[in-house]
Amino acid sequence: MTAESVLEETFSSISPAEFFYRNKQMAGFSNPTQAVYTVVRELVENSLDACDTARQFPDVQVSVSNPVSDEVVITVSDNGTGVPHEQVPDAFGRILYGSKYSSRQRRGTFGLGVTMAVLYGQITTDSAALIHTRPTNNEGREYRVLIDVQKNEPIVDSVQAKPRETPGTTVTIHMRGDSLRSRERIIEYLRLSAVGTPHAQILVNITDDFKDSFGPYDELLPPLPQDNKPHPRSADVELLRRIIKSSPTKSLEELLVNSFQQLGRKRASKILNFLNFSSRTNVSNLSRKEVALLSDGLRKFDGFGRPDSSCLSPIGKESFVKSVQASTNSEIIDYACTDPSDCDGFPFIIEAVLATGEMFPTGKVPSLYRFANRVPLLYDPTEDVFSKVIRQLNWTRYGLDSGMRVAVYLHFCSTRVPYKAAGKQSIASACNISEEALTLLRYLGRSLRKRVRTKRNAGRAERRMRKFESYFETIIESAASLADIDHFPDSAHMVKSLFEVE
Amino acid sequence: MTAESVLEETFSSISPAEFFYRNKQMAGFSNPTQAVYTVVRELVENSLDACDTARQFPDVQVSVSNPVSDEVVITVSDNGTGVPHEQVPDAFGRILYGSKYSSRQRRGTFGLGVTMAVLYGQITTDSAALIHTRPTNNEGREYRVLIDVQKNEPIVDSVQAKPRETPGTTVTIHMRGDSLRSRERIIEYLRLSAVGTPHAQILVNITDDFKDSFGPYDELLPPLPQDNKPHPRSADVELLRRIIKSSPTKSLEELLVNSFQQLGRKRASKILNFLNFSSRTNVSNLSRKEVALLSDGLRKFDGFGRPDSSCLSPIGKESFVKSVQASTNSEIIDYACTDPSDCDGFPFIIEAVLATGEMFPTGKVPSLYRFANRVPLLYDPTEDVFSKVIRQLNWTRYGLDSGMRVAVYLHFCSTRVPYKAAGKQSIASACNISEEALTLLRYLGRSLRKRVRTKRNAGRAERRMRKFESYFETIIESAASLADIDHFPDSAHMVKSLFEVE
Repeated sequence: MTAESVLEETFSSISPAEFFYRNKQMAGFSNPTQAVYTVVRELVENSLDACDTARQFPDVQVSVSNPVSDEVVITVSDNGTGVPHEQVPDAFGRILYGSKYSSRQRRGTFGLGVTMAVLYGQITTDSAALIHTRPTNNEGREYRVLIDVQKNEPIVDSVQAKPRETPGTTVTIHMRGDSLRSRERIIEYLRLSAVGTPHAQILVNITDDFKDSFGPYDELLPPLPQDNKPHPRSADVELLRRIIKSSPTKSLEELLVNSFQQLGRKRASKILNFLNFSSRTNVSNLSRKEVALLSDGLRKFDGFGRPDSSCLSPIGKESFVKSVQASTNSEIIDYACTDPSDCDGFPFIIEAVLATGEMFPTGKVPSLYRFANRVPLLYDPTEDVFSKVIRQLNWTRYGLDSGMRVAVYLHFCSTRVPYKAAGKQSIASACNISEEALTLLRYLGRSLRKRVRTKRNAGRAERRMRKFESYFETIIESAASLADIDHFPDSAHMVKSLFEVE
Repeated sequence: MTAESVLEETFSSISPAEFFYRNKQMAGFSNPTQAVYTVVRELVENSLDACDTARQFPDVQVSVSNPVSDEVVITVSDNGTGVPHEQVPDAFGRILYGSKYSSRQRRGTFGLGVTMAVLYGQITTDSAALIHTRPTNNEGREYRVLIDVQKNEPIVDSVQAKPRETPGTTVTIHMRGDSLRSRERIIEYLRLSAVGTPHAQILVNITDDFKDSFGPYDELLPPLPQDNKPHPRSADVELLRRIIKSSPTKSLEELLVNSFQQLGRKRASKILNFLNFSSRTNVSNLSRKEVALLSDGLRKFDGFGRPDSSCLSPIGKESFVKSVQASTNSEIIDYACTDPSDCDGFPFIIEAVLATGEMFPTGKVPSLYRFANRVPLLYDPTEDVFSKVIRQLNWTRYGLDSGMRVAVYLHFCSTRVPYKAAGKQSIASACNISEEALTLLRYLGRSLRKRVRTKRNAGRAERRMRKFESYFETIIESAASLADIDHFPDSAHMVKSLFEVE
């Protein structure tokens, strides 16, 4: 098996750069339209992450130009941390270069996004990516970076000092693409990015035909999520073995207590007892079978509380409501948020805003706007777990009728979003994500029904009041004419006060 | 940008094994049900490829057992080439290890499938993969292989001689999974695998409750597809630069003629003239700009003929029709096949069978069975290009009414299938794939309409004949009674012969 044709071919390692060069569509580069969209997206995502880390209100500028027929130039500039100079080559010229064990929510995670943009520019136009960055406490420099695809190594074509007033980064990618067809998607993406990051301002200029600014919708700088210890349920044998390797002299109990959240001394020794391990066993003495047994025990133990969610950064009720309202000029029906849950030990929260407004289309199901770690997801909606769940509900039962314009904004926050593909367009139906989303949507459905009823009742009361008014007028007029008076009191005011009696 | 939190974290390369360990769902491991299905699929795919290379009628045996609660053991055995011993560690223990420049159709391509199965087994049960293989002209050996995830390197836990009567390979994976829920999918997958590879026999045993055998449906061993030179349209700057590097002393014209299909001396010099290149330029003297210009010129030149399709292996009319018919006991309406086309220079063909039968469900659109390089695709149908295209047509116009049971089998063959994700579940809408599929489906739609009309007309003729018969009988009887005869000729036979007059 596998080595099918070893007799005739040479087999060897394929570098990650080579893999994604061969399979561009998996990283969001299916066609020239999507390619432009994906490059904008990856650069903006990185910029917003950099601003969050710098604790700055993001000021991101996006420009898309089209100097010659099918060549597109994309420039994204930010006021974030800047990239430390020693990191620039790898961060932009090595596919799958990233933080080893990050365990807090952020937009980019794979070390794949911005390098794919560099790679795509290079293979379609043979141009280097231009990176102008100034880290805090350092000078500004401009780099021209390419990738050696076969080796997956950065090639720094040139580097020179170039002043920059404040810290931040500007990246320019020359690529083949279709700026005209990708235009609507880019605008939609940036508009929704400002909704997902309400404290950001995003300026956009597309071929000088379209200029606009989105956000900020809120003045609140959200707290930076914390790096947490892993949840014991995420301890597959691979992770356990790594942890053991890093502290080979510890006792089993110490190791558990020090390495994981949710494991105090009491609970750790309870689990170890149950699994017939001695708490004092030196971890380096564990056999492979015992490590597997321990992993299985931690995974199956159902006494853990909700995972620590300080590593997550939900948009939050106030900000989310503000940004949806302001960006769509809509009326908010409700906001809701699940309790922290976990998928294989990785914590997640889903939050949602239900809104109604003229800009949303009518339909049997509310329009769905999907977000993952504050990033709007635009492509591949039908396979997404949220799209599936929203269609499972009978929205007519919740009072949605065909003339209504309702939308749901769903935001999935996690330290590990189970994207279906490296292009990060849709979320897989992993663990209990769909159950949690379903509970959330049912809650919002009930809010919708309440709203519809209140409106309907308000309408009924209004109609009753009008009728009362007309009767009252007749009575007052008749009474006045009987009493021979020609000025009589304002009946409307009287009726209104009648209906205001609690 | 990018290096968001360099201040607090260490950044480094993430090995491909680490990437897919972190993002299992991208490789088809979203949940325990899909995981079992994916492992079966990857092993069977590899086995069928190995048998094709060996020019053997595939005899593949699949066994799924469930020794303890949530542990599943999957064994797949074949009579293929066997794996050369020096290749075993890398082929099973290194993610992204594969043939560097394969340019013929095969099922597996990424060097990702079987190693992902090994990795998944390892991280869920800490078990090594068991590989028992005997290459042609060599002895049989059994290996226990694990993967060093952080380094992406194979670990050979043990190896020992173990006789095997004939060449071939048996792989056993211990993993966590759900064999009960994945059962239907596995059976469906194997049933359809025998349709896609009609000369294969596939035996299956699932936990001793289900035992069956699928195929062979045909006695024909398909020709092995050829490795072709690349199409000039696939010459992005990366490929051009590699080709130049491998023959730095050639002239530009020589390089083009020797390296690409579709480029004879005449056409090559025509293109070079048009781009203002001298045919005699030594390729190592080309500047980066010139390479980009050449790539652009080759990509845009529209005078190429259809790509050479000897690198492809369509199932073929006779075999495809036989396998669909035999596996479903259905009636075939038509078979059709597109001319060879290309996507960024990679040739593709789409072939299709339209069938009707009791086992297909009714509906407004025919049931769709998708195949890519003979492999059935079962998951994620809605985002697939074929699913989108089949819904674009108004099948009622082609005579499909709600009571009919019709199915379309669509087979995409290419040297590079643009899968949307590494799990290889659906094909992206790249290049002109959807246009080609649409043309093919319209053709089949017309076949369906013809068939429906013929049936309807046949019904009408039948009814008319019956009426004629009854008139004839009356006339004959009256005539006979008038003539005082009590035996008269068989009218049905007479009428039938009347209707047979052309």
